[in-house]
Amino acid sequence: MQLLKERILKDGKVYPGNVLKVSGFLNQLIDEKLLFAVGKEISTRFCAHNITKILTVEASGIAIACAAAHYMNAPVLFAKKSKTSNLSDNCYFADVVSYTHNNTATIVVDKDFISKDDRVLIVDDFLARGAAIQGLRSIIEQAGATLVGCAIAIEKGFQGGGDALRAEGIKVESLAIIDSMTDDALTFRKSI
Amino acid sequence: MQLLKERILKDGKVYPGNVLKVSGFLNQLIDEKLLFAVGKEISTRFCAHNITKILTVEASGIAIACAAAHYMNAPVLFAKKSKTSNLSDNCYFADVVSYTHNNTATIVVDKDFISKDDRVLIVDDFLARGAAIQGLRSIIEQAGATLVGCAIAIEKGFQGGGDALRAEGIKVESLAIIDSMTDDALTFRKSI
Repeated sequence: MQLLKERILKDGKVYPGNVLKVSGFLNQLIDEKLLFAVGKEISTRFCAHNITKILTVEASGIAIACAAAHYMNAPVLFAKKSKTSNLSDNCYFADVVSYTHNNTATIVVDKDFISKDDRVLIVDDFLARGAAIQGLRSIIEQAGATLVGCAIAIEKGFQGGGDALRAEGIKVESLAIIDSMTDDALTFRKSI
Repeated sequence: MQLLKERILKDGKVYPGNVLKVSGFLNQLIDEKLLFAVGKEISTRFCAHNITKILTVEASGIAIACAAAHYMNAPVLFAKKSKTSNLSDNCYFADVVSYTHNNTATIVVDKDFISKDDRVLIVDDFLARGAAIQGLRSIIEQAGATLVGCAIAIEKGFQGGGDALRAEGIKVESLAIIDSMTDDALTFRKSI
Protein backbone atom coordinates (compact mmCIF):
# COMPACT_ATOMS: atom_id res chain seq x y z
CA MET A 1 0.00 0.00 0.00
CA GLN A 2 1.83 3.01 -1.36
CA LEU A 3 0.33 5.59 1.02
CA LEU A 4 1.45 3.63 4.09
CA LYS A 5 4.94 2.92 2.74
CA GLU A 6 5.49 6.59 1.90
CA ARG A 7 4.38 7.59 5.39
CA ILE A 8 6.72 5.06 7.03
CA LEU A 9 9.62 6.47 5.01
CA LYS A 10 8.63 10.05 5.88
CA ASP A 11 7.73 9.77 9.57
CA GLY A 12 8.82 6.35 10.86
CA LYS A 13 11.75 6.28 13.28
CA VAL A 14 14.19 3.41 13.65
CA TYR A 15 15.68 2.56 17.04
CA PRO A 16 18.26 -0.05 18.08
CA GLY A 17 16.94 -3.61 18.33
CA ASN A 18 14.94 -3.42 15.08
CA VAL A 19 12.33 -1.15 16.67
CA LEU A 20 10.36 0.87 14.12
CA LYS A 21 8.39 3.61 15.83
CA VAL A 22 5.26 4.68 13.97
CA SER A 23 3.59 6.17 17.01
CA GLY A 24 3.50 9.60 15.37
CA PHE A 25 0.90 8.54 12.80
CA LEU A 26 -0.32 4.95 13.30
CA ASN A 27 -0.36 3.67 16.84
CA GLN A 28 -0.39 6.43 19.45
CA LEU A 29 -1.07 9.62 17.55
CA ILE A 30 -3.27 8.27 14.76
CA ASP A 31 -3.76 10.06 11.44
CA GLU A 32 -7.42 9.30 10.89
CA LYS A 33 -7.19 9.60 7.09
CA LEU A 34 -4.35 7.09 6.91
CA LEU A 35 -6.14 4.84 9.44
CA PHE A 36 -9.32 4.60 7.41
CA ALA A 37 -7.38 4.15 4.16
CA VAL A 38 -5.66 1.18 5.85
CA GLY A 39 -9.05 -0.14 6.99
CA LYS A 40 -10.48 0.18 3.47
CA GLU A 41 -7.48 -1.63 1.96
CA ILE A 42 -7.88 -4.50 4.45
CA SER A 43 -11.55 -4.71 3.53
CA THR A 44 -10.66 -4.90 -0.18
CA ARG A 45 -8.29 -7.81 0.45
CA PHE A 46 -10.72 -9.84 2.59
CA CYS A 47 -14.22 -8.76 1.50
CA ALA A 48 -14.84 -12.05 -0.36
CA HIS A 49 -14.14 -14.20 2.69
CA ASN A 50 -17.35 -13.86 4.74
CA ILE A 51 -15.61 -12.61 7.86
CA THR A 52 -17.88 -12.66 10.92
CA LYS A 53 -15.41 -11.29 13.47
CA ILE A 54 -12.28 -9.14 13.42
CA LEU A 55 -9.93 -10.18 16.23
CA THR A 56 -7.06 -8.06 17.56
CA VAL A 57 -5.19 -7.47 20.80
CA GLU A 58 -5.13 -4.30 22.87
CA ALA A 59 -4.04 -1.60 22.55
CA SER A 60 -2.47 -0.63 19.24
CA GLY A 61 -4.42 -3.11 17.11
CA ILE A 62 -7.81 -1.71 18.11
CA ALA A 63 -7.78 1.38 15.89
CA ILE A 64 -6.92 -0.55 12.72
CA ALA A 65 -9.42 -3.28 13.55
CA CYS A 66 -12.19 -0.70 13.98
CA ALA A 67 -11.31 1.04 10.71
CA ALA A 68 -11.44 -2.32 8.89
CA ALA A 69 -14.72 -3.17 10.64
CA HIS A 70 -16.30 0.01 9.32
CA TYR A 71 -15.82 -1.20 5.73
CA MET A 72 -16.33 -4.94 6.35
CA ASN A 73 -19.55 -4.76 8.39
CA ALA A 74 -18.17 -7.15 10.98
CA PRO A 75 -17.76 -6.64 14.73
CA VAL A 76 -14.38 -6.16 16.40
CA LEU A 77 -13.24 -8.35 19.28
CA PHE A 78 -10.10 -7.45 21.14
CA ALA A 79 -8.13 -9.67 23.49
CA LYS A 80 -7.16 -8.01 26.75
CA LYS A 81 -3.67 -8.29 28.13
CA SER A 82 -3.84 -9.95 31.57
CA LYS A 83 -6.89 -10.62 33.65
CA THR A 84 -8.73 -7.77 35.34
CA SER A 85 -11.45 -7.81 37.93
CA ASN A 86 -13.97 -6.98 35.19
CA LEU A 87 -13.49 -10.36 33.51
CA SER A 88 -15.17 -13.55 34.62
CA ASP A 89 -13.51 -16.97 34.71
CA ASN A 90 -15.41 -17.81 31.55
CA CYS A 91 -12.42 -16.94 29.35
CA TYR A 92 -9.94 -18.31 26.83
CA PHE A 93 -6.30 -17.55 27.64
CA ALA A 94 -3.02 -17.61 25.70
CA ASP A 95 0.51 -16.49 26.52
CA VAL A 96 2.26 -14.01 24.24
CA VAL A 97 5.97 -13.18 24.40
CA SER A 98 6.78 -9.56 23.59
CA TYR A 99 10.32 -9.24 22.24
CA THR A 100 9.94 -5.45 22.08
CA HIS A 101 8.98 -5.14 25.74
CA ASN A 102 10.94 -8.19 26.89
CA ASN A 103 8.08 -9.78 28.82
CA THR A 104 5.27 -12.29 28.54
CA ALA A 105 1.63 -11.24 28.69
CA THR A 106 -1.44 -13.38 29.02
CA ILE A 107 -4.15 -12.43 26.55
CA VAL A 108 -7.77 -13.08 27.44
CA VAL A 109 -11.05 -13.32 25.53
CA ASP A 110 -14.47 -13.96 27.04
CA LYS A 111 -15.84 -17.31 25.84
CA ASP A 112 -19.20 -15.71 25.09
CA PHE A 113 -17.66 -13.48 22.43
CA ILE A 114 -16.31 -16.08 19.97
CA SER A 115 -17.88 -19.33 18.83
CA LYS A 116 -17.25 -22.27 16.49
CA ASP A 117 -19.41 -20.57 13.85
CA ASP A 118 -17.10 -17.56 13.60
CA ARG A 119 -14.92 -16.92 10.56
CA VAL A 120 -12.18 -14.77 12.04
CA LEU A 121 -9.82 -12.21 10.53
CA ILE A 122 -6.86 -11.34 12.78
CA VAL A 123 -5.84 -7.67 12.46
CA ASP A 124 -2.79 -6.04 14.01
CA ASP A 125 -0.50 -3.08 13.52
CA PHE A 126 2.76 -5.08 13.45
CA LEU A 127 3.84 -8.61 12.58
CA ALA A 128 7.43 -9.51 13.44
CA ARG A 129 8.11 -13.02 14.79
CA GLY A 130 4.37 -13.63 15.00
CA ALA A 131 4.03 -14.10 18.75
CA ALA A 132 0.81 -12.08 19.07
CA ILE A 133 -0.70 -13.84 16.05
CA GLN A 134 0.10 -17.24 17.56
CA GLY A 135 -1.63 -16.24 20.79
CA LEU A 136 -4.72 -15.09 18.90
CA ARG A 137 -4.66 -18.31 16.81
CA SER A 138 -4.65 -20.32 20.01
CA ILE A 139 -7.78 -18.51 21.18
CA ILE A 140 -9.48 -19.09 17.81
CA GLU A 141 -8.60 -22.80 18.06
CA GLN A 142 -9.81 -23.07 21.66
CA ALA A 143 -13.14 -21.62 20.51
CA GLY A 144 -13.32 -24.02 17.56
CA ALA A 145 -13.66 -21.04 15.21
CA THR A 146 -12.11 -20.70 11.74
CA LEU A 147 -9.05 -18.53 11.10
CA VAL A 148 -9.61 -16.98 7.67
CA GLY A 149 -6.44 -14.90 7.55
CA CYS A 150 -4.33 -12.11 8.98
CA ALA A 151 -4.33 -8.45 7.94
CA ILE A 152 -1.32 -6.50 9.14
CA ALA A 153 -0.33 -2.88 8.64
CA ILE A 154 3.46 -3.35 8.88
CA GLU A 155 5.28 -6.67 8.64
CA LYS A 156 8.95 -6.96 9.54
CA GLY A 157 9.62 -9.51 6.80
CA PHE A 158 13.19 -10.07 7.96
CA GLN A 159 11.93 -11.49 11.27
CA GLY A 160 10.13 -14.35 9.54
CA GLY A 161 6.80 -14.54 11.36
CA GLY A 162 4.69 -13.70 8.29
CA ASP A 163 6.44 -16.12 5.94
CA ALA A 164 6.15 -18.93 8.51
CA LEU A 165 2.38 -18.39 8.59
CA ARG A 166 2.23 -18.29 4.76
CA ALA A 167 4.18 -21.55 4.64
CA GLU A 168 1.36 -23.09 6.65
CA GLY A 169 -1.11 -21.94 4.00
CA ILE A 170 -2.53 -19.04 6.00
CA LYS A 171 -3.51 -15.95 3.99
CA VAL A 172 -1.39 -13.13 5.43
CA GLU A 173 -1.90 -9.70 3.88
CA SER A 174 0.54 -7.06 5.07
CA LEU A 175 0.16 -3.57 3.67
CA ALA A 176 3.88 -2.85 3.98
CA ILE A 177 6.53 -5.56 4.31
CA ILE A 178 9.97 -4.40 5.40
CA ASP A 179 12.70 -6.72 4.15
CA SER A 180 15.60 -4.89 5.75
CA MET A 181 15.99 -2.09 8.23
CA THR A 182 19.02 -0.13 9.37
CA ASP A 183 19.35 3.25 11.03
CA ASP A 184 19.73 4.81 7.57
CA ALA A 185 17.53 2.79 5.25
CA LEU A 186 14.33 0.77 5.00
CA THR A 187 13.77 -1.64 2.12
CA PHE A 188 10.25 -2.78 1.30
CA ARG A 189 9.44 -6.10 -0.32
CA LYS A 190 8.30 -5.66 -3.95
CA SER A 191 4.78 -6.07 -5.30
CA ILE A 192 2.90 -5.36 -2.09
CA MET B 1 -28.84 8.79 22.21
CA GLN B 2 -31.74 6.41 21.91
CA LEU B 3 -29.89 3.62 20.08
CA LEU B 4 -27.23 3.40 22.79
CA LYS B 5 -29.72 3.54 25.67
CA GLU B 6 -31.81 0.77 24.14
CA ARG B 7 -28.72 -1.38 23.70
CA ILE B 8 -27.61 -0.83 27.31
CA LEU B 9 -31.05 -1.92 28.51
CA LYS B 10 -31.00 -4.96 26.21
CA ASP B 11 -27.41 -6.22 26.61
CA GLY B 12 -25.75 -4.37 29.51
CA LYS B 13 -25.05 -6.39 32.64
CA VAL B 14 -24.94 -4.97 36.17
CA TYR B 15 -22.51 -6.37 38.74
CA PRO B 16 -22.00 -5.52 42.42
CA GLY B 17 -20.07 -2.31 43.08
CA ASN B 18 -21.95 -0.28 40.44
CA VAL B 19 -20.15 -2.09 37.61
CA LEU B 20 -22.03 -1.92 34.31
CA LYS B 21 -20.56 -4.36 31.82
CA VAL B 22 -21.04 -3.38 28.19
CA SER B 23 -18.20 -5.53 26.90
CA GLY B 24 -20.60 -7.54 24.73
CA PHE B 25 -21.24 -4.62 22.37
CA LEU B 26 -19.15 -1.55 23.20
CA ASN B 27 -15.77 -2.17 24.74
CA GLN B 28 -14.45 -5.66 24.11
CA LEU B 29 -16.74 -7.16 21.51
CA ILE B 30 -17.64 -4.04 19.57
CA ASP B 31 -20.76 -3.75 17.39
CA GLU B 32 -19.32 -1.73 14.53
CA LYS B 33 -22.68 -0.23 13.55
CA LEU B 34 -23.33 1.04 17.07
CA LEU B 35 -19.71 2.22 17.35
CA PHE B 36 -19.88 4.39 14.26
CA ALA B 37 -23.34 5.69 15.19
CA VAL B 38 -21.78 6.79 18.51
CA GLY B 39 -18.87 8.39 16.63
CA LYS B 40 -21.26 10.26 14.33
CA GLU B 41 -23.31 11.53 17.27
CA ILE B 42 -20.15 12.81 19.00
CA SER B 43 -19.19 14.57 15.78
CA THR B 44 -22.63 16.22 15.60
CA ARG B 45 -22.27 17.56 19.13
CA PHE B 46 -18.74 18.99 18.67
CA CYS B 47 -18.40 19.72 14.93
CA ALA B 48 -18.64 23.49 15.46
CA HIS B 49 -15.74 23.58 17.92
CA ASN B 50 -12.69 23.34 15.64
CA ILE B 51 -11.27 20.27 17.34
CA THR B 52 -7.66 19.56 16.31
CA LYS B 53 -7.09 16.44 18.41
CA ILE B 54 -9.21 13.71 20.00
CA LEU B 55 -7.62 12.49 23.21
CA THR B 56 -8.45 9.21 24.95
CA VAL B 57 -6.80 6.60 27.13
CA GLU B 58 -6.08 2.98 26.25
CA ALA B 59 -7.69 0.58 25.77
CA SER B 60 -11.46 0.88 25.72
CA GLY B 61 -11.56 4.55 24.68
CA ILE B 62 -9.67 3.98 21.46
CA ALA B 63 -12.49 2.49 19.40
CA ILE B 64 -14.92 5.31 20.18
CA ALA B 65 -12.25 7.95 19.62
CA CYS B 66 -11.45 6.48 16.18
CA ALA B 67 -15.11 6.35 15.21
CA ALA B 68 -15.53 10.01 16.20
CA ALA B 69 -12.31 10.91 14.33
CA HIS B 70 -13.70 9.42 11.14
CA TYR B 71 -16.52 11.97 11.14
CA MET B 72 -14.60 14.90 12.66
CA ASN B 73 -11.49 14.80 10.47
CA ALA B 74 -9.21 15.09 13.46
CA PRO B 75 -6.43 12.75 14.59
CA VAL B 76 -6.71 10.50 17.64
CA LEU B 77 -4.14 10.55 20.42
CA PHE B 78 -4.29 7.95 23.13
CA ALA B 79 -2.52 8.05 26.47
CA LYS B 80 -0.76 4.82 27.38
CA LYS B 81 -1.10 3.29 30.81
CA SER B 82 2.38 3.09 32.38
CA LYS B 83 5.69 3.62 30.71
CA THR B 84 7.03 1.03 28.27
CA SER B 85 10.45 0.66 26.72
CA ASN B 86 9.04 2.09 23.48
CA LEU B 87 8.49 5.52 25.05
CA SER B 88 11.19 8.13 25.48
CA ASP B 89 11.58 10.36 28.54
CA ASN B 90 10.05 13.16 26.48
CA CYS B 91 6.60 12.56 27.97
CA TYR B 92 3.79 14.11 30.00
CA PHE B 93 2.58 11.96 32.89
CA ALA B 94 -0.50 11.90 35.13
CA ASP B 95 -1.78 9.49 37.77
CA VAL B 96 -5.26 8.00 37.42
CA VAL B 97 -7.06 6.08 40.16
CA SER B 98 -9.25 3.24 38.91
CA TYR B 99 -12.09 2.53 41.33
CA THR B 100 -13.22 -0.39 39.17
CA HIS B 101 -9.83 -2.10 39.23
CA ASN B 102 -8.81 -0.74 42.63
CA ASN B 103 -5.40 0.52 41.54
CA THR B 104 -3.57 3.61 40.29
CA ALA B 105 -2.11 3.80 36.81
CA THR B 106 0.24 6.35 35.35
CA ILE B 107 -0.90 7.60 31.96
CA VAL B 108 1.70 8.84 29.49
CA VAL B 109 1.65 10.99 26.33
CA ASP B 110 4.67 11.86 24.20
CA LYS B 111 5.33 15.61 24.33
CA ASP B 112 5.72 15.70 20.55
CA PHE B 113 2.10 14.67 20.05
CA ILE B 114 0.26 17.55 21.73
CA SER B 115 1.02 21.26 21.66
CA LYS B 116 -0.29 24.58 22.94
CA ASP B 117 -2.04 25.13 19.62
CA ASP B 118 -4.24 22.06 20.04
CA ARG B 119 -7.97 22.29 20.72
CA VAL B 120 -8.65 18.97 22.39
CA LEU B 121 -11.78 16.85 22.73
CA ILE B 122 -11.52 14.13 25.39
CA VAL B 123 -13.40 10.96 24.41
CA ASP B 124 -14.00 7.91 26.59
CA ASP B 125 -16.37 5.00 26.97
CA PHE B 126 -17.27 5.66 30.62
CA LEU B 127 -17.38 8.64 32.97
CA ALA B 128 -18.01 7.83 36.63
CA ARG B 129 -16.10 9.87 39.24
CA GLY B 130 -14.05 11.44 36.48
CA ALA B 131 -10.61 10.14 37.44
CA ALA B 132 -9.52 9.32 33.89
CA ILE B 133 -10.79 12.69 32.62
CA GLN B 134 -8.83 14.51 35.33
CA GLY B 135 -5.65 12.69 34.29
CA LEU B 136 -6.20 13.61 30.65
CA ARG B 137 -6.96 17.23 31.66
CA SER B 138 -3.66 17.34 33.51
CA ILE B 139 -1.84 16.27 30.35
CA ILE B 140 -3.69 18.90 28.28
CA GLU B 141 -2.73 21.56 30.86
CA GLN B 142 0.91 20.44 30.97
CA ALA B 143 1.00 20.86 27.18
CA GLY B 144 -0.62 24.30 27.36
CA ALA B 145 -3.37 23.07 25.01
CA THR B 146 -7.07 23.95 25.19
CA LEU B 147 -9.67 21.53 26.54
CA VAL B 148 -12.77 22.06 24.40
CA GLY B 149 -14.95 19.42 26.01
CA CYS B 150 -15.61 15.78 26.83
CA ALA B 151 -17.61 13.28 24.79
CA ILE B 152 -18.59 10.16 26.71
CA ALA B 153 -20.59 7.12 25.68
CA ILE B 154 -21.95 6.21 29.12
CA GLU B 155 -21.95 8.49 32.16
CA LYS B 156 -22.76 7.16 35.61
CA GLY B 157 -24.54 10.33 36.64
CA PHE B 158 -25.01 9.14 40.21
CA GLN B 159 -21.23 9.11 40.75
CA GLY B 160 -20.97 12.84 40.14
CA GLY B 161 -17.89 13.17 37.93
CA GLY B 162 -19.76 14.60 34.93
CA ASP B 163 -21.75 17.17 36.90
CA ALA B 164 -18.60 18.34 38.71
CA LEU B 165 -16.99 19.04 35.33
CA ARG B 166 -20.15 20.83 34.10
CA ALA B 167 -20.12 22.97 37.26
CA GLU B 168 -16.66 24.13 36.19
CA GLY B 169 -18.12 25.24 32.85
CA ILE B 170 -16.73 22.34 30.83
CA LYS B 171 -18.93 21.08 27.98
CA VAL B 172 -19.58 17.41 28.80
CA GLU B 173 -21.72 15.49 26.32
CA SER B 174 -22.65 11.99 27.41
CA LEU B 175 -24.75 9.92 25.05
CA ALA B 176 -26.40 8.01 27.88
CA ILE B 177 -26.48 9.25 31.49
CA ILE B 178 -27.48 6.70 34.10
CA ASP B 179 -29.02 8.35 37.15
CA SER B 180 -29.57 5.17 39.13
CA MET B 181 -28.57 1.57 38.80
CA THR B 182 -29.62 -1.53 40.70
CA ASP B 183 -29.46 -5.21 39.80
CA ASP B 184 -32.99 -4.95 38.42
CA ALA B 185 -33.28 -1.49 36.93
CA LEU B 186 -31.42 1.30 35.16
CA THR B 187 -32.79 4.81 35.06
CA PHE B 188 -31.53 7.24 32.44
CA ARG B 189 -31.49 11.01 32.92
CA LYS B 190 -34.12 12.73 30.77
CA SER B 191 -33.49 14.80 27.64
CA ILE B 192 -30.20 13.26 26.64
